[in-house]
Amino acid sequence: MIETATKVIDKVNSPDDVKKLSLEEMYTLADEMREAIIKKVNTTGGHFGPNLGIVEATIALHYVFNSPVDKIVFDVSHQCYPHKMLTGRKEGFLNPDLYLKYTGYTAPEETDHDVFKVGHTSTSVSLATGLAKGRDLIGGKENIIALIGDGSLTGGEALEGLNIGATLGSNLIVIVNDNDQSIAPNQGGICEHLTKLRNTNGECKDNIFKAFGYEYYYIDEGHDIQKLIDLFSKVKDTDHPVVIHMHTIKGKGFEPAETNREPFHWILPNALDKLNDEKEPYVDYGTLTADYIEQKVNEGVPIVAMSPATPAVSGFFPPFRERIGNHYIDVGIAEQHAVGMASGIAKRGGKPILAVMSSFIQRAYDQLSQDLALNNTPATILIFWGGITNADATHLTTFDIPLISNIPNIVYLCPTNKSEYLRMLDWSVSQNEHPVVIRVPMVGLDDETIDTTDYSKINKFKLVERGEKVAILGLGNSFELAKKVRSKLNDNGINPTIINPIYATGLDKELLESLKQNHKLVITIEDGEIDGGFGEKVTRFYGVSDMKVLNYGSFKEFTDRVPMNELEKRYHLTPELILGDIIKAIG
Amino acid sequence: MIETATKVIDKVNSPDDVKKLSLEEMYTLADEMREAIIKKVNTTGGHFGPNLGIVEATIALHYVFNSPVDKIVFDVSHQCYPHKMLTGRKEGFLNPDLYLKYTGYTAPEETDHDVFKVGHTSTSVSLATGLAKGRDLIGGKENIIALIGDGSLTGGEALEGLNIGATLGSNLIVIVNDNDQSIAPNQGGICEHLTKLRNTNGECKDNIFKAFGYEYYYIDEGHDIQKLIDLFSKVKDTDHPVVIHMHTIKGKGFEPAETNREPFHWILPNALDKLNDEKEPYVDYGTLTADYIEQKVNEGVPIVAMSPATPAVSGFFPPFRERIGNHYIDVGIAEQHAVGMASGIAKRGGKPILAVMSSFIQRAYDQLSQDLALNNTPATILIFWGGITNADATHLTTFDIPLISNIPNIVYLCPTNKSEYLRMLDWSVSQNEHPVVIRVPMVGLDDETIDTTDYSKINKFKLVERGEKVAILGLGNSFELAKKVRSKLNDNGINPTIINPIYATGLDKELLESLKQNHKLVITIEDGEIDGGFGEKVTRFYGVSDMKVLNYGSFKEFTDRVPMNELEKRYHLTPELILGDIIKAIG
Repeated sequence: MIETATKVIDKVNSPDDVKKLSLEEMYTLADEMREAIIKKVNTTGGHFGPNLGIVEATIALHYVFNSPVDKIVFDVSHQCYPHKMLTGRKEGFLNPDLYLKYTGYTAPEETDHDVFKVGHTSTSVSLATGLAKGRDLIGGKENIIALIGDGSLTGGEALEGLNIGATLGSNLIVIVNDNDQSIAPNQGGICEHLTKLRNTNGECKDNIFKAFGYEYYYIDEGHDIQKLIDLFSKVKDTDHPVVIHMHTIKGKGFEPAETNREPFHWILPNALDKLNDEKEPYVDYGTLTADYIEQKVNEGVPIVAMSPATPAVSGFFPPFRERIGNHYIDVGIAEQHAVGMASGIAKRGGKPILAVMSSFIQRAYDQLSQDLALNNTPATILIFWGGITNADATHLTTFDIPLISNIPNIVYLCPTNKSEYLRMLDWSVSQNEHPVVIRVPMVGLDDETIDTTDYSKINKFKLVERGEKVAILGLGNSFELAKKVRSKLNDNGINPTIINPIYATGLDKELLESLKQNHKLVITIEDGEIDGGFGEKVTRFYGVSDMKVLNYGSFKEFTDRVPMNELEKRYHLTPELILGDIIKAIG
Repeated sequence: MIETATKVIDKVNSPDDVKKLSLEEMYTLADEMREAIIKKVNTTGGHFGPNLGIVEATIALHYVFNSPVDKIVFDVSHQCYPHKMLTGRKEGFLNPDLYLKYTGYTAPEETDHDVFKVGHTSTSVSLATGLAKGRDLIGGKENIIALIGDGSLTGGEALEGLNIGATLGSNLIVIVNDNDQSIAPNQGGICEHLTKLRNTNGECKDNIFKAFGYEYYYIDEGHDIQKLIDLFSKVKDTDHPVVIHMHTIKGKGFEPAETNREPFHWILPNALDKLNDEKEPYVDYGTLTADYIEQKVNEGVPIVAMSPATPAVSGFFPPFRERIGNHYIDVGIAEQHAVGMASGIAKRGGKPILAVMSSFIQRAYDQLSQDLALNNTPATILIFWGGITNADATHLTTFDIPLISNIPNIVYLCPTNKSEYLRMLDWSVSQNEHPVVIRVPMVGLDDETIDTTDYSKINKFKLVERGEKVAILGLGNSFELAKKVRSKLNDNGINPTIINPIYATGLDKELLESLKQNHKLVITIEDGEIDGGFGEKVTRFYGVSDMKVLNYGSFKEFTDRVPMNELEKRYHLTPELILGDIIKAIG
């Protein structure tokens, strides 16, 4: 690396500067950007392979189009690092002190070059179609570009958007960045079709994009800046909808990521420094889940482990997938279909276990309600990573309890540790009466107790310790905090009742009723949004009684990378702050 | 009509009986079924055109396949009347006394021949794919058939399902019943592609179904029973995924419905007796909405009136659509895309007004959250028909408040009458700060007051009458009931405070705080599910105060055609029952 002022990137502070570069300089720029991305992501963690694959295309885009007048909508936006570097934010990738300055997703508050705040997949075509419609009505002339990965293409909103974008009758440029890989390998008919298109230089029969009504261009050399510039220039200012099917290499320029793409989609800090380290075997809720599933499969239970394109989250790694064979299915980025299919499998006597991240189950509210709950099919859905975090605003995991707990028929279980989780999972798989959702805990992995609870007694809370005056209900992950509050109260001469409510979807009315005898205050704590969540149900139960109730959880807000200690302060999620509230409430 | 025992339908009590019929008898049966459907639907109201179009195909299906071993999954299931008649439920169509015995949708509780309870579109392929996966794992051999209309095909879940169904590698038969019409005319690239396929007898280039990976058959004569039988027999027991693209005529056999398909998709009771009546001009919230939009368009406001394939609900009838031209867009059955596109339009300075039925906004939770709220784009979304009804379980409209009101940034307004509604609509269109959802009222159409409220004062409730002891908050449609409760209280010597809270998404804390001075009890009433709704937020506000709170609304349950008076009794939604509760609570 040349550490002098002769670097091309030093000259580039906006897309206008890109337009002044020679082809050779652009290739140098690509190398410099790639090197910076590798270094930065290896320090902070983040999306790795997708960004390395889109460097040249991003340079060509900014060479040809005129952002921010022309609008580039990034799908998922985890391919936006090169774009950020070329639109005035390169210091976030070059200066280690500023590595955390910018979010890993497009963010209009950072620059006009980012049109939307985006972190969920498959939205770009719909959003771009809206921009195009607005432009046409108001009388603009700019290019509207949606940049979507092949993995995102199978999500329902993307396909809905492609359908309508095709008939807008005006400028809309959809760039399908086909790197032959979602997070995990792609799935389904569209994936096989894209492979055929790649293998025939875009000329195979039954072209799906042409079927939708798009003019179609294939470019195999997605890292050839000149060819990209030529093609982008050709479609620039088109008066009709166009698809550019662009073949790139995920992880381009970092050999291990090119050859082994799944683990390099997103990497942890310093991952690249440990490439040759012996992998330490580890246990987490994902591997526990996978182990349970494998055991049941071996016992002959007709389990189908399902993932909507995020298998690593739930421990569904390649060797596991291979071992259980047709007991595993990745449905691609398609949460709606995943829930519908799970309901179908359960209806036919199979035992689906669908693992979804909290932030992405949002895609499937209607399917949870109509395909699953209304049909009362005994599928098991595992919600991973639910809780209050310092995540980007696009990936918050605080909404799943309000989302799921108000749907009839569903049993939403919130275990507080490993033994409860495994017991619940086993109960869910063995029963045939309820659609069951389990919020996989973020705590209690070292718990070695043996749980023997009968979870078929729906809405039967666990009375962990009977005390008086104050009762604390700590749901799921929040049970730990409930116990800490107890200690604080003990120090203040109060021996509170401690309850593990387990069920986010209902109340143990008998137990709650009994608390009225010798309690003045009930506290609920949940690891998610209070509005519409579990605690409010408890508060309503006591609406006309003399019981006072305090609900803890996160507020109704989108937080964006706010540190946990700040959130805990804001939401009063510390023993000290809760103690203060208790004293204020009951003296 | 022959009113003797010689009718073919008298012999048909199950699919087995269909298999015994001659071709001639099957045609006679089709005539008899069609006549019965026309008479029945004209009496009870219901889905008309779709069912008339599928009579012959249903007979052929039951002739060839072996339901309930072979499984037919109906999409939306508003094409299931002929299927119901052939699977032991014909009396519900022949005997006027039993016309209401069966639901208008598939319902497993009625018979094993119905696999799922379905009323939302685009789910059949996903559900069928699940059945196929379950079958393959358990070792069954039956045929799995998804029957999906062309209109449903553009919904994201259908396309996600097609993608995965294509690569299951086993028996899956998708019948696309293409009658060239959704509820309103179809939209988008897929629709234009289907037209091309129809016009070329299925032989045009770039076949989308082949692109997905399906074996493809086109049958133009979707009312030719022999040809249908031949084709169904050919694909029966196939070992791979097949699409049958079947052309039928919506409304077949009832000429006015064949030529004018949109108004005959679903008809009101006795509609067919009034075909030649002069149409009375009428005003409802739909026509008010359309009139407002047209006026604004004429004033030069860049409004885009949007509908996801249900334009009549919001008064977007063909003459209106023609008059406002490119200010109207029907995006087809694609609620997710609709919200994403609305956000894009608003981002580009347009003024989208998206009208969606309460039951179907469920499809777009994630888009409301991520595409819209997170981006804070000032789109206007109108929720039609929200409230507690005697509807089928598949079309309940009680969940939209819990769904929407817990998403950050969104302002969810619940007007109580016409003047408030129009004022809110105008405010929403004129502002640029908030994503606004308005729950179009079901009451107050005859209100002639002039509302001058400033709705930009977010969460400022309307204090309608200041009283004491009891305060009643009646949200939206429920404000009427609040006023009736006041009368009851007046009769009992209490002069309550009456509040119109307007905002389902927040609290007027100042006003609620002030109630503590001289009130003992606060009552909330909302026209929807209590769990996760508006009232619980009020209850939480008073959690540690001495205020007692009672929340009214519907329970967390799927009700199925339960009469309103029964629901009112169950939920205590009458002045008398609420008065009783008040007396019990505060003596």
